Amino acid sequence: MASSAMGSCKSEEVDIEKSTQSEWVLNPPEPPSPWRVVADSVRKTISLYKLKFSSHKDQPCTTLLSLLHLFFPILSWATNYSATKFRKDLLAGLTIASLCIPQSIGYATLAHLDPQYGLYTSVVPPLVYAVMGTSREIAIGPVAVVSLLLSSMMEKLVDPAADPVGYTKLMLLATLFAGIFQTSFGLLRLGFLVDFLSHAAIVGFVAGAAIVIGLQQLKGLLGITHFTTKTDVVSVMKAVSKAVHDPWNPRNFILGFSFLVFILTSRFLGKRKKKLFWLASISPLVSVILSTLIVYLTKADKSGVKIVKHVRGGLNPSSIHLLAFNNPYIGEVAKIGLVVAVIALTESIAVGRSFASIKGYQLDGNKEMMSIGLANIIGSLTSCYVATGSFSRTAVNYAAGCESLVSNIVMAMTVLISLQFFTKLLYYTPTAILASVILSALPGLIHISEAYKIWKVDKFDFLASLGAFFGVLFASVEIGLLVAVVISFSKIILISIRPGTETLGKLPGTDLFCDVYQYPMAVKIPGVMIIRVKSALLCFANANFVRERIIKWVTEDEPEDDKRNSRNTIQLVILDTSNLVNIDTSGIASLEELHRSLSSHGKQLAIANPRWQVIHKLKVSNFVSKIGGRVFLTVEEAVGCKSQC
Amino acid sequence: MASSAMGSCKSEEVDIEKSTQSEWVLNPPEPPSPWRVVADSVRKTISLYKLKFSSHKDQPCTTLLSLLHLFFPILSWATNYSATKFRKDLLAGLTIASLCIPQSIGYATLAHLDPQYGLYTSVVPPLVYAVMGTSREIAIGPVAVVSLLLSSMMEKLVDPAADPVGYTKLMLLATLFAGIFQTSFGLLRLGFLVDFLSHAAIVGFVAGAAIVIGLQQLKGLLGITHFTTKTDVVSVMKAVSKAVHDPWNPRNFILGFSFLVFILTSRFLGKRKKKLFWLASISPLVSVILSTLIVYLTKADKSGVKIVKHVRGGLNPSSIHLLAFNNPYIGEVAKIGLVVAVIALTESIAVGRSFASIKGYQLDGNKEMMSIGLANIIGSLTSCYVATGSFSRTAVNYAAGCESLVSNIVMAMTVLISLQFFTKLLYYTPTAILASVILSALPGLIHISEAYKIWKVDKFDFLASLGAFFGVLFASVEIGLLVAVVISFSKIILISIRPGTETLGKLPGTDLFCDVYQYPMAVKIPGVMIIRVKSALLCFANANFVRERIIKWVTEDEPEDDKRNSRNTIQLVILDTSNLVNIDTSGIASLEELHRSLSSHGKQLAIANPRWQVIHKLKVSNFVSKIGGRVFLTVEEAVGCKSQC
Repeated sequence: MASSAMGSCKSEEVDIEKSTQSEWVLNPPEPPSPWRVVADSVRKTISLYKLKFSSHKDQPCTTLLSLLHLFFPILSWATNYSATKFRKDLLAGLTIASLCIPQSIGYATLAHLDPQYGLYTSVVPPLVYAVMGTSREIAIGPVAVVSLLLSSMMEKLVDPAADPVGYTKLMLLATLFAGIFQTSFGLLRLGFLVDFLSHAAIVGFVAGAAIVIGLQQLKGLLGITHFTTKTDVVSVMKAVSKAVHDPWNPRNFILGFSFLVFILTSRFLGKRKKKLFWLASISPLVSVILSTLIVYLTKADKSGVKIVKHVRGGLNPSSIHLLAFNNPYIGEVAKIGLVVAVIALTESIAVGRSFASIKGYQLDGNKEMMSIGLANIIGSLTSCYVATGSFSRTAVNYAAGCESLVSNIVMAMTVLISLQFFTKLLYYTPTAILASVILSALPGLIHISEAYKIWKVDKFDFLASLGAFFGVLFASVEIGLLVAVVISFSKIILISIRPGTETLGKLPGTDLFCDVYQYPMAVKIPGVMIIRVKSALLCFANANFVRERIIKWVTEDEPEDDKRNSRNTIQLVILDTSNLVNIDTSGIASLEELHRSLSSHGKQLAIANPRWQVIHKLKVSNFVSKIGGRVFLTVEEAVGCKSQC
Repeated sequence: MASSAMGSCKSEEVDIEKSTQSEWVLNPPEPPSPWRVVADSVRKTISLYKLKFSSHKDQPCTTLLSLLHLFFPILSWATNYSATKFRKDLLAGLTIASLCIPQSIGYATLAHLDPQYGLYTSVVPPLVYAVMGTSREIAIGPVAVVSLLLSSMMEKLVDPAADPVGYTKLMLLATLFAGIFQTSFGLLRLGFLVDFLSHAAIVGFVAGAAIVIGLQQLKGLLGITHFTTKTDVVSVMKAVSKAVHDPWNPRNFILGFSFLVFILTSRFLGKRKKKLFWLASISPLVSVILSTLIVYLTKADKSGVKIVKHVRGGLNPSSIHLLAFNNPYIGEVAKIGLVVAVIALTESIAVGRSFASIKGYQLDGNKEMMSIGLANIIGSLTSCYVATGSFSRTAVNYAAGCESLVSNIVMAMTVLISLQFFTKLLYYTPTAILASVILSALPGLIHISEAYKIWKVDKFDFLASLGAFFGVLFASVEIGLLVAVVISFSKIILISIRPGTETLGKLPGTDLFCDVYQYPMAVKIPGVMIIRVKSALLCFANANFVRERIIKWVTEDEPEDDKRNSRNTIQLVILDTSNLVNIDTSGIASLEELHRSLSSHGKQLAIANPRWQVIHKLKVSNFVSKIGGRVFLTVEEAVGCKSQC
């Protein structure tokens, strides 16, 4: 061992070093008090805004400009905008518009709203987002999961079939609440709320939601009139089997299914050959136009094919008068707004982040929340329901070569023109086609390869995934969400209350002490037991457990031959606290009991490498003096103290 | 720096060492799979029982004996029991009996039960515990906090004044449930449930409960007939002020208050002079006897002094026929049983542990739960309500010099004899005296010095304490408990979702890299940023936060002069993962994004000292190859790779 040999020939120098090192460990500067930590965090949030406003003190006129640039990123990138970029954005915008029109109508139906509300939602929110958003690819508008979530929670309050106006009012109110929540998350920098759903849980949840949405489309695809309002698989299958046993009209199904096959085939071709990519993008719109023509020409609506009928045209009407705050469900609606706000942000930020990281730029989570929030607030005043970044349209936008958020503006304008001039043409559109358009978007939401990757890497994450999936499928959308959050957090709690403990040995040729199972070549030091707790906190929830385990290891598990050979009996227990970020009063009490128990067995306790908060609290509570000051910078030094013991 | 000089002169050897060390890091043995961890834990639980039964395979007849010894520790210690020990236990047992009789009657009143139920509860459970318990000091019986908790939850179901028999039946049922829960916690080794309340929360909760109990005693002390059923301070003070404004009889108060002064004075004397200790212990019984005599002789009951009246004498009657499972509140009662089971165990194990650690032996948490559970199950069949280890009587038992659980047997026998022969004498006992006896026990439950210690060591713990205290005081007992649990766990969650990050520097004269704030003498390496996350988990809840913070540090916070002087710009970011016990798929995804972002800025990422699960998952998910295998055993080595970059 080169280092130990060196250690002995320079023992004097090392001794001096060691004594200063103990000084370092035992007398660190005072750690920041909890008040200062809280105050700092608040001040930082405030000063972030202040700094940005006041960074140009010498040029007062630029302050306003920088303020505008802060809130409207479009001002920053519009100056570099060129005709080349516009050509690309125009193409991308038209492509997503062609996908957006049938999807918007379909998602509005899924949300139990009139078709025009879906189209409205594809006009105002994308425009607001275009001037405020920090992403370059996100396509804003109504999305499937949010529509499903809204309708499944809202129809418990008001029956959309019995009171469509009251239902629409509540939807707009929920949109306003969602927008307010999202904006305030951004302002208060509460971005972490979006992280409450783990990636694994989202994969499971979205896949489950996709299947539920698909099952809901059976209503349109089969032309069923009486359908269940529940979303779980069992209820839906019962409703379908009941409807199929009644006399039913197969024309809806034949029409919808053949166009579904057309859309899926064109998508498959588009994926195989990059040049045919546009075919995949416009096939939904082509299907709508073709099927509408077929129904119009053959008068199939007379023989049982269900059609959309009247879609109200014209610009987004104002909906301020519809926002009734004095209704009895205001609390419930606010709760729905909160849940939807979080889910909508989760989807949008996840999709935005993944494309931003492909293009190599950063998404500002807090600004994103503010811009989507404002898009929804303004949306709720102009007859829109909750909009967010869509998985499928964002991917198409990226693939179509978008350069900036101008593609969203193009899309919004296209939808606006359609609303103004072409809604009458939608009269004969069969509902089965809308179901096909939605169904064709669903495979993109089921990530089997991702689920397999999760399974391979982390079994517990996979469990969260499965829980969310089956929760959505067999219970309800909200229960699926709840299961996902509970499983995700129970993992954190579980690791905190039942942390592992490991014994350390010395790695040959180094001063390092490592887990003897991870590094089988590590050698245990005779007479010394070195223990490390696999947790960042020694607290009420785990302190007794850890103490009992250590005492058991030290007293009971001492090998038989060690007991006879007293020279090898453990004399010193070293607790390597390099892991521990913090400790609480229960943790300290537990260490004190550990020390007493070890003392009564004639063994000593030493602490190695305590962190800032830990050494501070151990000193304040006099624990350091109770164990005779046996606190060391490294395990190596602590082992060295054995000879003195 | 001696070590680095040595490093360069032995570069060849070191290089070889380093390459083997990388091997060690990158190719650890496969960590145990989650299935094996779960299976091992189950097997361990089962084999613990198996082992103890089958450890004497060669002597089959001793198997039964060891089984008996396992379940009845009395068999182990009874063989060493001596007359000297018995003399001490007899004295201690008589002392706690004299305290126990008035307390039992008082606590039964607090639980809204007839006085005899308190006495019954001091007979059977102590006997059961005596043959099964592992503590030597715990005195079993009814306790104040559990009595308060039971009555405050139960009177929401049945009004004890209107339907005393129905109320008593539910109490017995709740006792049975509590016993079943406690026994199963022990059998399934779920001892951690008792740790859900942090030490700080218990201090606050018990202090709040003591004040609430004290306020409840105002009813007896003032002789109020109509009293509130609520337990919060505001309701009780209102009820008291209302009662005081009515014509009231001050004799109750004078009697109660003067004996309260007597008991407190004798306790004060007992504390000052050890020889007068017995005076403090028997003063409650003396008060009861004296006051009963006074009332009997002066016929004060005729002039408004409230008395206990009839106490049913005789042995504990069987109560099997009272356990009605087919009642509508069965679910609620089971819930009450669960809450009470946990609180009762928390109190008993906390008090048992503290005395065991004074005497230097270990308490087996799981066995304790089983014995208290069985004491309650058998108790519920013999007209007892929930019993547990009492703070006050255990302290007296210890102070009186008890040697074993025989003192509990002596106490139970004394109470039994009293039940059989002396209950008639309790007829004239004034209820104000019972209130005084309970009031005199309360100061022992309010630990102001402990609260100050908590404040000094951990401000957050103190907050939990305060929350529990004010929750009990101003809302209700259950809300106080809930607040305590929520605050305790929110700390764990908070640290997990918003972990700190720290930059490391090299400690002069060592190879160690430490937090530059904790060790101001640590020197940062130019061009390298070394970061450590203060968390044991890099997971969905914190991965994005950590990634964003690191990128911000690395890109934005680069000092101005460093930017100009390109030689000093950060080229390498080292993530010291020695803290991280585990990582999930979101954590890995986040590291991948971090790597991409850093690469796009021309910086490199290296990982130092990954733990077992972390390196395993990083390998499985191909992250190690993505960052070009830059995984090192120590930060020192990772810094060394900068030159190669």
